[in-house]
Amino acid sequence: MDTIQSDGYSIFFDDSITELFKFVEQGNYSKVFVLTDDNTGIHCLPLLQPHLVKLNSYDLIEITAGEENKTIDFCIGVWKMLIDFGADRKALMINLGGGVVTDLGGFVASTYKRGIDFVQVPTTLLSQVDASVGGKTGVDVDGIKNIIGTFTQPKAVFMNDGFLSTLPQRQLLSGLAEMLKHGLICDADYWDELKESDLSLPSAELIYRSVEIKNAVVLEDPHEKNIRKALNFGHTVGHAVETYSLLNDDDPLTHGEAIAIGMICEAWLSNKKAGLSTNQLDEVASVITRLYPKYEVKADSQAELFKLMLNDKKNFDGQINCTLLKRIGDFSIDNLCTEVELYDSLNYYAGL
Amino acid sequence: MDTIQSDGYSIFFDDSITELFKFVEQGNYSKVFVLTDDNTGIHCLPLLQPHLVKLNSYDLIEITAGEENKTIDFCIGVWKMLIDFGADRKALMINLGGGVVTDLGGFVASTYKRGIDFVQVPTTLLSQVDASVGGKTGVDVDGIKNIIGTFTQPKAVFMNDGFLSTLPQRQLLSGLAEMLKHGLICDADYWDELKESDLSLPSAELIYRSVEIKNAVVLEDPHEKNIRKALNFGHTVGHAVETYSLLNDDDPLTHGEAIAIGMICEAWLSNKKAGLSTNQLDEVASVITRLYPKYEVKADSQAELFKLMLNDKKNFDGQINCTLLKRIGDFSIDNLCTEVELYDSLNYYAGL
Ligand SMILES: NC(=O)c1ccc[n+]([C@@H]2O[C@H](COP(=O)([O-])OP(=O)(O)OC[C@H]3O[C@@H](n4cnc5c(N)ncnc54)[C@H](O)[C@@H]3O)[C@@H](O)[C@H]2O)c1
Ligand SMILES: NC(=O)c1ccc[n+]([C@@H]2O[C@H](COP(=O)([O-])OP(=O)(O)OC[C@H]3O[C@@H](n4cnc5c(N)ncnc54)[C@H](O)[C@@H]3O)[C@@H](O)[C@H]2O)c1
Ligand SMILES: [Zn+2]
Ligand SMILES: [Zn+2]
Repeated sequence: MDTIQSDGYSIFFDDSITELFKFVEQGNYSKVFVLTDDNTGIHCLPLLQPHLVKLNSYDLIEITAGEENKTIDFCIGVWKMLIDFGADRKALMINLGGGVVTDLGGFVASTYKRGIDFVQVPTTLLSQVDASVGGKTGVDVDGIKNIIGTFTQPKAVFMNDGFLSTLPQRQLLSGLAEMLKHGLICDADYWDELKESDLSLPSAELIYRSVEIKNAVVLEDPHEKNIRKALNFGHTVGHAVETYSLLNDDDPLTHGEAIAIGMICEAWLSNKKAGLSTNQLDEVASVITRLYPKYEVKADSQAELFKLMLNDKKNFDGQINCTLLKRIGDFSIDNLCTEVELYDSLNYYAGL
Repeated sequence: MDTIQSDGYSIFFDDSITELFKFVEQGNYSKVFVLTDDNTGIHCLPLLQPHLVKLNSYDLIEITAGEENKTIDFCIGVWKMLIDFGADRKALMINLGGGVVTDLGGFVASTYKRGIDFVQVPTTLLSQVDASVGGKTGVDVDGIKNIIGTFTQPKAVFMNDGFLSTLPQRQLLSGLAEMLKHGLICDADYWDELKESDLSLPSAELIYRSVEIKNAVVLEDPHEKNIRKALNFGHTVGHAVETYSLLNDDDPLTHGEAIAIGMICEAWLSNKKAGLSTNQLDEVASVITRLYPKYEVKADSQAELFKLMLNDKKNFDGQINCTLLKRIGDFSIDNLCTEVELYDSLNYYAGL
């Protein structure tokens, strides 16, 4: 698998751990910092240790695992550790973890001393196919997701499917939803390939193709002005379902589980409004329901979901702006959907 | 006075308040936020009010005045207010104040929703001739100055010497030190002009020339790799004296008062090591001592000052890296000075 070129940096696949330490050596850094969370400290750091111990100087910084810790408060903790460890402008930060570590670590590095170099070593499927590509960093303030951040490219990304063997199945499924999305918005052949693959542990080749697609989209639209909106497919309804579940369920949906529901609803809307054929709608719904557990959206929660969608997006006159599918492999941005249409899409999902 | 072009934005001088509101109107912003501190809220905001009330929508955000409040904690407070006020990506932030407001406001804006537009309206002499030009934003964490920040250019800067009439004399003198520095490092004619002017309230023309010089230097070296080090003249010794005074004096020196001392010491070093003539050293010392009160650096504090300098800079083998003068109007970077040389320079200042 060839190295993929992104916006001024490379995304390595083959021998990526060797490549990482080649990069470190060539960079002539004053010191190397490895950021992990408590899970990646146990499961992923051992793959780096044999190389780390050969460096002149490195330090480990660990944050507590979990979405709820991707906060400005944890950033302050990491900045203080960098200060205590004497990190200067020529320090390098290696972010080793899922999207929480790569988003928070990217923000911390992009602002420490007005920006030090950082690289991403994503260890979840979601962070490999999504979070680590595109240059968005971000953390939460006051419970508002990603409200603070920068657009800053890493110096390189190192992909290693070896990390995925310790990842819980639900986390794998969460990343898989983004891969299915990549096929649906950009590449019908890839969708067909995914459909026919054993997806309990997606192959390195499938991950590679997803990274290619995400990279191509963000290169065309680095600051999210237009085409990048393609990546929102499934996310309008999906985000609302995700937030709703976080607020109401003891064991809330993962991001990908919520997006899976969102993609079915938005495929229904695509059939209604953007040209997706009924055959293809059926296909999307059947592939996704086969992979993901059914979630009950109670009829009396629909109004709450709609309110969440209104918060989430730029709306016009109480309508919701959605990215939809013209057909499998092609998308259409800026479709306005009414409240009733959104309820009908949720009813479609409930009736499957 | 012509508008000065900087790195992708303009610095306005004539009719700058009118220009500011032209800019606001043309920008089609969803909402305008004005950041002040409690002093600029009283003394400077009234000049903007007649224009603000004509806007569809604006909000005021005020921070507590003072260097000690340029912290990440105050940033969190401002981010929360932006969230509460519903600021979206098309919001504009107007930073109306001294370097504390422009540095903190620039950082807050450059990271809110991964960056919203901001403009600088500097209201102190120091922020006009120094802080508002160059694209550095920054705040303190754990008492470490400017440890967190970004390089982000404002959309425009609006200079108005009308603000300076309410500025305390000591604050004026603080900014004046940077103007003297601009002459010393880059422009002997400008230095001569300053020497002969009434500096109790520097004229708009003198301020303009300082902004031109600072702008030219940062344009040539936006990320502080080489030439920008010219701006460090007076700041190696000066920063140490400033920190020492903050730690030891009831009524500590201002930044400019400390830099004034630093420039005398570093002029002495320039005479010793970089070619500055003895005549010109005498001239520098006499102009500066005429303007600034004498400060006593006790002989037994010299070691403490040297330790502060060692912390501050990249040093080699216990020597200190200084920017010096070849002659008035020309500088030389990366001069290594020994402990003894630095003590001698402090003794020279003490003996004046
Ligand atoms: N920057 C972007 O463009 C972008 C895109 C999508 C998502 N995101 C962000 O990514 C985050 C979600 O990412 P995520 O799903 O990777 O979450 P995560 O980082 O919380 O990882 C999920 C869980 O898996 C654990 N883990 C990570 N790697 C492991 C491994 N190899 N073995 C065992 N356990 C492992 C983690 O400790 C965590 O408990 C969200 O905050 C989201 O906002 C960012
Ligand atoms: N970004 C840069 O490149 C850069 C360069 C130099 C300095 N700085 C920063 O600038 C800060 C110092 O700036 P400063 O000296 O402007 O400090 P400041 O902002 O604290 O202002 C000094 C005092 O004057 C008051 N004030 C401001 N305008 C006034 C007016 N028109 N009338 C009456 N009172 C007024 C303020 O409330 C404050 O009390 C430091 O934090 C320093 O790190 C940044
Ligand atoms: Zn997603
Ligand atoms: Zn200064």
